[in-house]
Amino acid sequence: MIVSALLTSVGINTALCVMFFALYSILRKQPSNYEVYVPRLLAEGTSKRRSRFNLERLIPSTGWVAKAWRLSEEELLSLSGLDGVVFMRMITFSLKMFTFAGIIGILVLLPVNCWGDQLKSIDVADFVSNSLDVFTISNVNSGSRWLWVHFSAVYIVTGFICIQLFYFNLWKYFCLTASAISIVIHELTVEIFTHISIVLIFNDAKKLYKTVTQLRSDPTQQKHRRSFSSGLFGRKNSVIEHYEKKLENIEENVRLKQSEASLAGEEARAAFVFFKSRFGAATAVHLQQSVNPTHWITELAPEPSDVYWPFFSESFMRRWISKLVVVFVCILFTILFLIPVVIVQGLTNLSQLEVLFPFLTSILTIKFVSQIVTGYLPSLILQLFLKLVPPAMEFLSSIQGYISHSDIEMSASRKVLWFTIWNVFFATVFSGSILSVLRALLDPKNIPGKLAVAVPAQASFFITYVVTQGWTSVSSELFRVIPFIFSLITRPFTSTDDDFEVPSAPYHKDIPRVLFFGLLGITYFFLAPLILPFLLAYFCLAYIIFRNQFINVYAPKYDTAGKFWPIVHNSMIFSLVLMHIIAVGIFALKKLSLASSLTIPLPLLTLIFNEYCRKRFLPIFVAYSAESLIKKDREDQQNDATMTQFYENLISAYEDPALLPIHYSPDNDSLHTPLISQA
Amino acid sequence: MIVSALLTSVGINTALCVMFFALYSILRKQPSNYEVYVPRLLAEGTSKRRSRFNLERLIPSTGWVAKAWRLSEEELLSLSGLDGVVFMRMITFSLKMFTFAGIIGILVLLPVNCWGDQLKSIDVADFVSNSLDVFTISNVNSGSRWLWVHFSAVYIVTGFICIQLFYFNLWKYFCLTASAISIVIHELTVEIFTHISIVLIFNDAKKLYKTVTQLRSDPTQQKHRRSFSSGLFGRKNSVIEHYEKKLENIEENVRLKQSEASLAGEEARAAFVFFKSRFGAATAVHLQQSVNPTHWITELAPEPSDVYWPFFSESFMRRWISKLVVVFVCILFTILFLIPVVIVQGLTNLSQLEVLFPFLTSILTIKFVSQIVTGYLPSLILQLFLKLVPPAMEFLSSIQGYISHSDIEMSASRKVLWFTIWNVFFATVFSGSILSVLRALLDPKNIPGKLAVAVPAQASFFITYVVTQGWTSVSSELFRVIPFIFSLITRPFTSTDDDFEVPSAPYHKDIPRVLFFGLLGITYFFLAPLILPFLLAYFCLAYIIFRNQFINVYAPKYDTAGKFWPIVHNSMIFSLVLMHIIAVGIFALKKLSLASSLTIPLPLLTLIFNEYCRKRFLPIFVAYSAESLIKKDREDQQNDATMTQFYENLISAYEDPALLPIHYSPDNDSLHTPLISQA
Repeated sequence: MIVSALLTSVGINTALCVMFFALYSILRKQPSNYEVYVPRLLAEGTSKRRSRFNLERLIPSTGWVAKAWRLSEEELLSLSGLDGVVFMRMITFSLKMFTFAGIIGILVLLPVNCWGDQLKSIDVADFVSNSLDVFTISNVNSGSRWLWVHFSAVYIVTGFICIQLFYFNLWKYFCLTASAISIVIHELTVEIFTHISIVLIFNDAKKLYKTVTQLRSDPTQQKHRRSFSSGLFGRKNSVIEHYEKKLENIEENVRLKQSEASLAGEEARAAFVFFKSRFGAATAVHLQQSVNPTHWITELAPEPSDVYWPFFSESFMRRWISKLVVVFVCILFTILFLIPVVIVQGLTNLSQLEVLFPFLTSILTIKFVSQIVTGYLPSLILQLFLKLVPPAMEFLSSIQGYISHSDIEMSASRKVLWFTIWNVFFATVFSGSILSVLRALLDPKNIPGKLAVAVPAQASFFITYVVTQGWTSVSSELFRVIPFIFSLITRPFTSTDDDFEVPSAPYHKDIPRVLFFGLLGITYFFLAPLILPFLLAYFCLAYIIFRNQFINVYAPKYDTAGKFWPIVHNSMIFSLVLMHIIAVGIFALKKLSLASSLTIPLPLLTLIFNEYCRKRFLPIFVAYSAESLIKKDREDQQNDATMTQFYENLISAYEDPALLPIHYSPDNDSLHTPLISQA
Repeated sequence: MIVSALLTSVGINTALCVMFFALYSILRKQPSNYEVYVPRLLAEGTSKRRSRFNLERLIPSTGWVAKAWRLSEEELLSLSGLDGVVFMRMITFSLKMFTFAGIIGILVLLPVNCWGDQLKSIDVADFVSNSLDVFTISNVNSGSRWLWVHFSAVYIVTGFICIQLFYFNLWKYFCLTASAISIVIHELTVEIFTHISIVLIFNDAKKLYKTVTQLRSDPTQQKHRRSFSSGLFGRKNSVIEHYEKKLENIEENVRLKQSEASLAGEEARAAFVFFKSRFGAATAVHLQQSVNPTHWITELAPEPSDVYWPFFSESFMRRWISKLVVVFVCILFTILFLIPVVIVQGLTNLSQLEVLFPFLTSILTIKFVSQIVTGYLPSLILQLFLKLVPPAMEFLSSIQGYISHSDIEMSASRKVLWFTIWNVFFATVFSGSILSVLRALLDPKNIPGKLAVAVPAQASFFITYVVTQGWTSVSSELFRVIPFIFSLITRPFTSTDDDFEVPSAPYHKDIPRVLFFGLLGITYFFLAPLILPFLLAYFCLAYIIFRNQFINVYAPKYDTAGKFWPIVHNSMIFSLVLMHIIAVGIFALKKLSLASSLTIPLPLLTLIFNEYCRKRFLPIFVAYSAESLIKKDREDQQNDATMTQFYENLISAYEDPALLPIHYSPDNDSLHTPLISQA
């Protein structure tokens, strides 16, 4: 691709961005669009619908940018929970990383690349003087000593990123262990942290049901439950005492039944079991309960708003089979998706297109059209196809057997990320043919060599990709194209006073996208440093726009305390190792075998660093330590008021929406009633 | 190789076995050899050294065979613990597997192979009519329909082995969950199971030391400790009460200090912490204790006799680095070991040898010599080299950071197994050149094809290998060659009344060997069914001989309750998948591509089966369920007598041999004293 095509693309997208910004500035001030652009403020009552017309409403303004810029991390934490903070930290992390790599890339590597004349000397006839390839490592002469500059850059940037990752992990770690817990408790997730509750899934429903029936027929308890149902409480303390006792009873009964449980269970049912202390709950979660490990499965209960009911009562086997099926479908989906990628790749090759559709020849000879087709259309089409992926992956994750929305979202994030890496990065690099991708992967010895040839060749495609896919996606995120169109269409049929739902941040869509741009930056920074300014522009836009959206649009439905961080960490490590493999190949290709050999320890060191981080930081994402649990338990014991409030919330916290009618008729004998509805 | 060479080898080894059996029958009756052949009975006092001469002592007898044959599983359990039972079950499992495969192989596959004339038609000149290759799949005509017989055999045998594995896992599972626990408790490992004790490794030794000093300066406790040291106990119950209280104190203190622990620990120390219930101990083990997961590491304490002290007080970092270093050294060792393998492979190729050493030509032309050299010498030399591997691997495992002998042994077993598979199987198959092995592995697409060519070609080598390495090793195990020679040499210098140690079974040597023969059997059963009778003979010998050794020689030092079973399971699954890959390659090579494609689902199904087993059975190897722990705790509470006995044992159970002098001077201020020595 030539520079003018890139400039066309940059021009179009800058214009699009400016247009989106201007439109956003105006449209967000129109009361009829409040539901689209400031649903959060509307729900909180901060913004009221003003119907009075105002000239100011028609002039674009930049006040929102300043507001988003000034937002402190504490405010963000209170607005969007730890998830939002970690998401923004991921963007600032990328900004730091690429500012550092950008300084090295633009000031050192780019001049070195331009200085070389490999491309000129090899193929004078085919060489276009303003080709983007002049700025890539391809232009450095083979065996040139200047390649040691690239070698040093690879080592320095890897070291910088690893140190940054370590500090980020450390920050996240202190976040999870110290301040964050208390903040999360008081702000967002009272249920999960104040009394970690346990989901016990067991097969022996009939026996448990008997126990429950016995509890029911007990006249003293019957009385209490009636008082619960009618909402006429006696002294609160006595109710709480009774409640605690009953919880103990249930726990004891569950345990007794458990030891009697027969192996051949006929029906699978689930229950919430509440514990009087976090420590007790953690004990029940981390110990295998029944002798048969597939028989009683304990999991930490999600927050009430986070529970995903469809798989709640499923047995181990069904969830396991669901998972196998979803893995299979995912692989199939990923492979079939290569078809649109192949078509898109065809567009970058005009002559191929002219052969396929001869009637297009006359149009394609117009310079502007051909530049749009080669520079802009391919990645736009790819982008439209990729829009389908996050919802598809979210659907697949939702039938995989998870019992919480947050697990589904994290699983979907992972799927979308690996899908993008496979189908956008590798499929593009290996010219879109599934066979050539597979052939390359099935020949690991030659992977570095093949990558070294194929990756730099696609530099211009990915630079355009950053501009089109990145810039456009982030400004359309601001403009909220689809909700806006949807609101335009439905507006005539809905009254403005209807209830509306404040959306929650679509992390499963945004995290993989940000990480994929991180991967592009890391792998291309020493091959084609020209990508870095465009990436930095993307991350700056993302920084402002996501902060703005957290203020105005998204309200968190639940908070996972940033448990998606391991996905980010793994993606960074993968990007680094991929970059090292490409470096090994490039140095070998450029006939600098010493540099090639000296690069080999780098991926090993990175993997050892990763292994250390897994030991040092990963456990806190899986479970809280006894130390912090006991500390919080003690604090709770001293704080009676919170506990009273908590027990009140507990009564109605977990209610399967499908079972609510049963809950309101306590004498119904249905087996479906989960334990919580007896309390 | 021709049939006569195989027969020579079989002849030599049968003679060797008979000689070993006869010698053993005579020598074991000589009182001077009791220490070598019946150390266990000697130690138990069942056998006394009789000095009176007896003619019967010089006549070989078979009574011991009958005795070994009649041994029931209950007797074996009481003799050698669950480890011995699982080891013998592994052999009976192999016997079952290869009897089934043998019936199919000899009655169905062998005639099919002989019926073909592929080898005759291809290369008449080079074809020796009595070549062993006639009995292999190589002789079946390409594209022949008879290959579907092999295809069916692969499916049937895989199904049979998987079903057997499932039932074996189920048996092991009930073993661990039901009867076995109680047996183990009362017989062997009182400490571990009656009160699961916990090893806490922490860095904050100074603060803990202060706590301990405070405990010391407490006059009431001082008094009690003195009474402990002098052995003059008051009423036992009061001592126990005091003891329990003190344990609580220590636990509480440990927990308090833990929350204050600073991140920058200067010294790493370890302690045993005892709990009043198994359930409590399990809680402490399975929950991450400190906020920093590398700071306090909890592990189940090994049995007192099983503790390996050198790494006991090491910090997480040192143990982690040790592990990394050992992994690196292991890889290096495995690669360097290929040198002797290459030499051995040279021997099977006489012409190559004659080129290298021209002066040997005259000797090698003698038929008998050449048969010995090709048929017997190669695997004998390999065997001698392989003798070095188990001790080397055990040494490597011992510096890897484990704190128990059983962990070291299990880790060494894994290392020896993978070493054997890599260096004997793959190196032999790919003609012993490290480069060709690596080249094959780095080209995964062609692995089935390359294996299909290389594996059947080595059939005769591995048949000989079973005869020489298998038969000889198992009969020299009976004869105990090295201990016998050692005893002959040292006998003049030691008096017969000296203390001697009863050896424990060298599982890290024997398990990989048995499993490797399993791998050979599984991979070769459909390629060269002729291997099966020899394998069956090996397993029959092993069955009798190991039972005999468990009766007479080996006494268990500790019992892991058969926790090495996952190694066996993984090895079987690996063998099956390897066999499937070879089958895919063979059918493709034989131009029966439909069979080749239809074999592909088989490894996938096997891996899914493995995944299910991991979910269903593996957890019990890692931890006991809450259900069984609580059950045992309740039984203990009702059994006061056992507990009293237990507390008495506890006082002196865990003593680091290096620290014993400190233990006996309780006012010594050394930091080295582990917590237990304060109790």
